[in-house]
Amino acid sequence: MPNLLDRINEPNDIRKIRPEDYPALAKEIRELILKTVSSNGGHLASNLGVVELTMALHLSMNFPNDRLVWDVGHQSYTHKILTGRKKDFASLRTFGGISGFPRRSESPCDCFGAGHSSTSISAALGMARARDLLKENRTIAAVIGDGSLTGGMAYEALNNLSRLKSNMIVVVNDNHMSISENVGGLSTHFAMLRTRESYLEFKKDVERTLRQIPRIGGSLARSVKYSKDQFRQLFVRGGIFEDFGIKYIGPVDGHDVRSMVRIFNAIKLMDEPVIVHVVTQKGRGYAPAEKDPSLFHGIGKFDLETGIPEKSSGESWTDVFSKKIVGMAREHHDITAATAAMPDGTGLHRFAERFPRRFFDVGIAEQHAVTFAAGLAAGGLRPFVAVYSSFFQRAYDQIIHDVCIQKLPVVFCVDRAGLVGADGETHQGIFDLSFMSGIPDMVVMAPKNSFELTAMLEYAYELECPVSLRYGRGAAYNGLEQMQAPLERGKSELIRQGDQVMFFALGSMVECAVQAADLLARRGISAGVVNARFAKPIDEEALGLAADQGKLIVTMEENLLAGGYGEAAADYLALHHPGARIMHVGIEDRFVPHGSVDQLRKMLGIDPQSVAERTAAFLENAEDGGQQ
Amino acid sequence: MPNLLDRINEPNDIRKIRPEDYPALAKEIRELILKTVSSNGGHLASNLGVVELTMALHLSMNFPNDRLVWDVGHQSYTHKILTGRKKDFASLRTFGGISGFPRRSESPCDCFGAGHSSTSISAALGMARARDLLKENRTIAAVIGDGSLTGGMAYEALNNLSRLKSNMIVVVNDNHMSISENVGGLSTHFAMLRTRESYLEFKKDVERTLRQIPRIGGSLARSVKYSKDQFRQLFVRGGIFEDFGIKYIGPVDGHDVRSMVRIFNAIKLMDEPVIVHVVTQKGRGYAPAEKDPSLFHGIGKFDLETGIPEKSSGESWTDVFSKKIVGMAREHHDITAATAAMPDGTGLHRFAERFPRRFFDVGIAEQHAVTFAAGLAAGGLRPFVAVYSSFFQRAYDQIIHDVCIQKLPVVFCVDRAGLVGADGETHQGIFDLSFMSGIPDMVVMAPKNSFELTAMLEYAYELECPVSLRYGRGAAYNGLEQMQAPLERGKSELIRQGDQVMFFALGSMVECAVQAADLLARRGISAGVVNARFAKPIDEEALGLAADQGKLIVTMEENLLAGGYGEAAADYLALHHPGARIMHVGIEDRFVPHGSVDQLRKMLGIDPQSVAERTAAFLENAEDGGQQ
Repeated sequence: MPNLLDRINEPNDIRKIRPEDYPALAKEIRELILKTVSSNGGHLASNLGVVELTMALHLSMNFPNDRLVWDVGHQSYTHKILTGRKKDFASLRTFGGISGFPRRSESPCDCFGAGHSSTSISAALGMARARDLLKENRTIAAVIGDGSLTGGMAYEALNNLSRLKSNMIVVVNDNHMSISENVGGLSTHFAMLRTRESYLEFKKDVERTLRQIPRIGGSLARSVKYSKDQFRQLFVRGGIFEDFGIKYIGPVDGHDVRSMVRIFNAIKLMDEPVIVHVVTQKGRGYAPAEKDPSLFHGIGKFDLETGIPEKSSGESWTDVFSKKIVGMAREHHDITAATAAMPDGTGLHRFAERFPRRFFDVGIAEQHAVTFAAGLAAGGLRPFVAVYSSFFQRAYDQIIHDVCIQKLPVVFCVDRAGLVGADGETHQGIFDLSFMSGIPDMVVMAPKNSFELTAMLEYAYELECPVSLRYGRGAAYNGLEQMQAPLERGKSELIRQGDQVMFFALGSMVECAVQAADLLARRGISAGVVNARFAKPIDEEALGLAADQGKLIVTMEENLLAGGYGEAAADYLALHHPGARIMHVGIEDRFVPHGSVDQLRKMLGIDPQSVAERTAAFLENAEDGGQQ
Repeated sequence: MPNLLDRINEPNDIRKIRPEDYPALAKEIRELILKTVSSNGGHLASNLGVVELTMALHLSMNFPNDRLVWDVGHQSYTHKILTGRKKDFASLRTFGGISGFPRRSESPCDCFGAGHSSTSISAALGMARARDLLKENRTIAAVIGDGSLTGGMAYEALNNLSRLKSNMIVVVNDNHMSISENVGGLSTHFAMLRTRESYLEFKKDVERTLRQIPRIGGSLARSVKYSKDQFRQLFVRGGIFEDFGIKYIGPVDGHDVRSMVRIFNAIKLMDEPVIVHVVTQKGRGYAPAEKDPSLFHGIGKFDLETGIPEKSSGESWTDVFSKKIVGMAREHHDITAATAAMPDGTGLHRFAERFPRRFFDVGIAEQHAVTFAAGLAAGGLRPFVAVYSSFFQRAYDQIIHDVCIQKLPVVFCVDRAGLVGADGETHQGIFDLSFMSGIPDMVVMAPKNSFELTAMLEYAYELECPVSLRYGRGAAYNGLEQMQAPLERGKSELIRQGDQVMFFALGSMVECAVQAADLLARRGISAGVVNARFAKPIDEEALGLAADQGKLIVTMEENLLAGGYGEAAADYLALHHPGARIMHVGIEDRFVPHGSVDQLRKMLGIDPQSVAERTAAFLENAEDGGQQ
């Protein structure tokens, strides 16, 4: 049998494939995805689920003229393979290689980037309006998972979609679960749509509309009528969507390419927005992923034959948090925990098992998670909200308005803070230090190592005010175990003294500072290390002392410099210790692409070697009397 | 007739009023609200609409034990009058007086603060969960307007509400419009609920549930059945709410106190969450507000007899924006405009009239507004999104994820930036400079006067990148008309030279800087003024020059200092011009309560007098060799 993928090199090449070969092509695509993800890591279950759906969309759309918007974007691998990126697919998620998410800069076929949830209908609606105003001829489609529909902005978009008087296709990819199990009434609603007998009746008006489509309309409506068994339920009542006044078609078998193509071809000619409810199976075609799609949602390298993930190196920050919060909850009965569709990712699954009534997974709904936690706190409980740094961005207003203005003791456990690596620019946790520190009354902390994370969790509980506590992705640092000075609000911890340089390092950068100091020592430069601990309030005394001693102060943080720890330190010094010498280690004004964390740190100059070199150069330049 | 309000001094005192006197009490409350708002300004139409609803809630709840959460909070005047704040009501919205919104610090009966939209169900659900976990006995209710239901987080909350296995009341206050006309499919859905004959049939299961309530159940169900004409439609199908699996009752006449009390008393005993759909009339009882509720939504002083608002002083920043954007759109056919339920407040009503197809009011849905605009930009258009500063906070993630990462040319027109005055802490626009400046690739500007605002709008169009352009509430400054240096990215404008001090003032603070410089001149201190123009990128050259000349640099901004313009300037100077003398004028780490803008500026030390005094003191202290 010939290799069908050999014939797919440019966008739209899929049209060269004969319909009877679609299943074989799907198989080849799955093999390519499996091979690549098992070696590079990536999103597996979601991508295996949408192979046929993507093929059908590509067979009925014309790229790059038509616009296809992927919600979250972690299911776009087939789309990439079909749009000229097959040859580069082996570089998926690697430094300089192709991204695991749609990126406008990567291909004209990626019309809209993503990484966060629930944005696709809004973006596609904007494109549809632009098309109409510019009198262009384009098919515009969004693909959104049932999980993404738990995010509020999808409803804002649906509410606006109903006013569009031209065509736009919204494919609701119903795979029975988002990252973890779906949450709330909506998931029950979908289950009902899938099964309830009373929903099986044909919708006459949709049928009528299809009949009116020139030429193919009649035959499609007929085929729909007579292939009822085959499609299971094609035109059924779409409750919630019709409440919004939007035409609904489905459920449709999301693994039957030819049927989907017929449906897409028909409805793209309609003069109104249409929801197509497609049912797919996560992990389809790979037994281990079919069995445990949650494990294979986002995964590192794994053994293709056994499906066993490569062992990760050491206990992660998340694990440390996970165990500690359970221990604390055993002691303090007012502790509750909330997350947004990430019980596994945040380690709260342990808490959920042990204290199911005190645990809340609200779905992909960060805004609700935060305000709900504020309500718990107003009701006398002590909520810990664990969400990834880049997703807390979505609850920025709620953190200000519902927690901090009201002075409620909610602890924000900011997981995946700092560089996250292969997921790239939408997932880097490089804003939280800035936006959390900018909010009045917030205390912002970051631990140097696993022991300090546990101490900070206890301290956060004692503080009884809004607290942001950030820690990174991957293995927790276990060095500096002997350094366990008690936590005191706004006070840093001296790790080692130095004569010429003092590194004021926050969180993950303490390890880096120690290594940089060692490197400098070899060059005969005496550098000390301060564990900053608090990004807010900063330790003005320690900074002032180092400044008065004439030492070069090097601030270090794994965050954007703007509004971060270093800027606050420099501001304090400029106001109160003019003449202090200061240098920043952190991320300049830029987004950070994908790659390994080590590669990215090197690129950004925040690895020990770069820090040591920059520091030595600064001192040398200063000795030469140069202006930095 | 006795004054009924005389008998209401403490929470729950309303129970002393005889049912036949309810209409008279409502009349007295309306008179008090009208008298106060006509002299202090405030939210009128929404408060007049919920007088009877609030009375009914107070008659069936027990304060402060029970918890009543007001969405947005701008309709809580009756609640305040009924909970011990009648005597202070004359101080409404004035400096040191009672707030126009619920505030936890103001009364134990204000269990949750608000000011922004769509948070109430989330917060109340948190309180309900806390009640259940703590085994307390409390009625918990949220009141949310139909407008607030266009905000996505309300859906996130509904989706989670369905899992609550105990009681919570959600009153949907359907007043046919939010601030402006309601938007989208949902508003059609409500209209249908209100009118469609087929929806009038009784819901048997709700009726059955009510019958099961001990004692009163049966009679209630009967009364409901037989008073159908009176209540119009009491138990009808609640489409969208039932899709979420939540029990729905309504529509109920929101001006019939006794009926509402009976209903609330019955359903608060049910063991599940219940939506009560209440229909009220905005502006009820005051003819001018009934006729034009949008004008009387948020209003300044007005003549009680005629309903004519006091003339505002001069053209507002919003007016200047409003006219200019229409002019630009006439010239550039790719300009589109979007807002979130604020066409009047942002001045986009003019654009909407002139270019209806290019204008989009998306409802109270800032997240969608921004991502939709990103879609318009990706589709080849040039969107200008006008939203108030404090509401842009809700779209922070979308600004990062959907606009800036994707390098799309969306212009954010940040209205009501800086202090807004009487609306208080939830509405102060004091974060945008920080969070906008913290985003890579964003250009952040603020104009000194009305002429510069028009120039900056044109310049923003030319830039073709994400731009944040902030301007304040109230009358635009028209001074310095002669200063019209062409705009250049990251370049400031010299207003006047000074020998000892240079004010680097941003936006609204340029006027203040000129006045402060005049005050200093009278003291013999030579102070210059630089119009900073850009908060990002900052004008490093101008700052460096002033530093090298040994001048005291005073940064000035109407924003929190953390992450703002001054901190960026100080950071630059600390790194590149150590020894530079710098002082900040801006808002320290605190939330800012309500009061007139002048009072607040004085309190915060950002008025000309305070700035001049602090500057003089700094210089004096420096001459004495003191450390600042």
